[in-house]
Amino acid sequence: MAIVGAGQVGTMLGLALRSANACPEVALLDQDPQAAAASLGQGAGDRLLRSAEEALAFDVVVVALPVPEIVRFVAVWGLRIREGSLLLDTGSAKRAVVESMRRAVPPSVHAVGGHPIAGTERPGPAGADPSLLKGAPFVLTPVREDAEGLHQARALAEAVGAVPFEMDARAHDRVVARTSHLPHLVAFALARVAEGVASPEVVRTLASSGLAGATRLAASDPVMVGGFLSANAEEVRAAARELAEALEGLVRSADIGAEAAAGALARAAEDFRRLREAP
Amino acid sequence: MAIVGAGQVGTMLGLALRSANACPEVALLDQDPQAAAASLGQGAGDRLLRSAEEALAFDVVVVALPVPEIVRFVAVWGLRIREGSLLLDTGSAKRAVVESMRRAVPPSVHAVGGHPIAGTERPGPAGADPSLLKGAPFVLTPVREDAEGLHQARALAEAVGAVPFEMDARAHDRVVARTSHLPHLVAFALARVAEGVASPEVVRTLASSGLAGATRLAASDPVMVGGFLSANAEEVRAAARELAEALEGLVRSADIGAEAAAGALARAAEDFRRLREAP
Repeated sequence: MAIVGAGQVGTMLGLALRSANACPEVALLDQDPQAAAASLGQGAGDRLLRSAEEALAFDVVVVALPVPEIVRFVAVWGLRIREGSLLLDTGSAKRAVVESMRRAVPPSVHAVGGHPIAGTERPGPAGADPSLLKGAPFVLTPVREDAEGLHQARALAEAVGAVPFEMDARAHDRVVARTSHLPHLVAFALARVAEGVASPEVVRTLASSGLAGATRLAASDPVMVGGFLSANAEEVRAAARELAEALEGLVRSADIGAEAAAGALARAAEDFRRLREAP
Repeated sequence: MAIVGAGQVGTMLGLALRSANACPEVALLDQDPQAAAASLGQGAGDRLLRSAEEALAFDVVVVALPVPEIVRFVAVWGLRIREGSLLLDTGSAKRAVVESMRRAVPPSVHAVGGHPIAGTERPGPAGADPSLLKGAPFVLTPVREDAEGLHQARALAEAVGAVPFEMDARAHDRVVARTSHLPHLVAFALARVAEGVASPEVVRTLASSGLAGATRLAASDPVMVGGFLSANAEEVRAAARELAEALEGLVRSADIGAEAAAGALARAAEDFRRLREAP
């Protein structure tokens, strides 16, 4: 298997695959030599590749790059992937990837969109934690009617300890815009608002652990986040509008008074808690 | 000393004061008998009080209630607090409290606004963790020219392990609206947006650890949060508007493309990181 992109996600997958002895060889490719060496050093692969051409020769090609680079990789190399191989990606926006695969990859290749719901906000190989894959959902979004491709992708997801979850790419993007992309966007926006309000000393002093938690995702790789935000821009815009409306509703209730605000907050929290705690 | 309100903050302070042997007696008052008993059971006080009247007889009265209840306590009992006593509160919105103290408490009482920047999102005595006070800023907002009051309040802040930080109430509220109140508001709004987007099963499956972190503050007591949001409604509204503008700017950059988005995100994150990491 070739893993294209030895950042946090590629490294996490390589580590999980190798510790499970799930395939005879894991080869890593990254355009950043330091990241490639670090990933190899952590044990995510058996050896490094030097070019995309080399990756095309493998039975399984996993593309773990920022979403726009996945789309570009598929567009540039799709025609040259070996017949019968599995092509899987790990991007957190799926519609753009799946459309690119449908256009550029011949049906003789098993192309499937993938998104493991596991990771940390720490960029690069150093942020990789394969234990997070254990029991994590691994979304698979079909590219075309291809039972064999899905079968192979499910097997790979299970090999890293995750639970495959099949889903339409558009539905995935709609949900993930609210459960992941919007929280990322908000973390950066909160950081910006807090940063500008007073002198650094005062902001630092009054910044609580709550702010640290709320802005934690702003430590994510801006290239990765910018990639999925732009690839899912339409849904992200809709989600941001929904958030602004929810904020406005809560602010209005705070204007009315403490009891109205507490009631509105309790309803928002209660629905969410019920959802998360349900069996 | 009397602590009025044996929730998370009152319990945290009582525990810290008693373990530091900082005063001869800590007496607790809470209108919820279960919270009062739990707080006493955890060791936050030597005994329970049964009425506000009893609390008025102490040398030090610390009011650790949701902000609107602090304002009400001060308005109702301010005239009857013992001459020469220290009256300190712990609310996270200070202007309303300080104004109430100025109006209702005679100058013969040392009234000072206080806000320890320490706590968890777990409501009630069970959420109290006095170790969080160690080195934490304890904001003190003067009510009137009163060097002796500030001196006593500083001593109390230091006794619980915190670092006193004197500040004007209005400036405090402006900053805290962005560093604490807005992050709380956003957590509840994010919970609302995520909750409604798909079936509970799908939302649960696609909810990442990122969403869990971003909505962690939505586990806070809605009465406490509703209290400070309504007491600081003007600044909270302004902060929410700034957030909406920051979001809109980031969404627009995502519309332009991945590189523009990455650049805008990197700038927001970088300014914030520099601020937080500065000496």
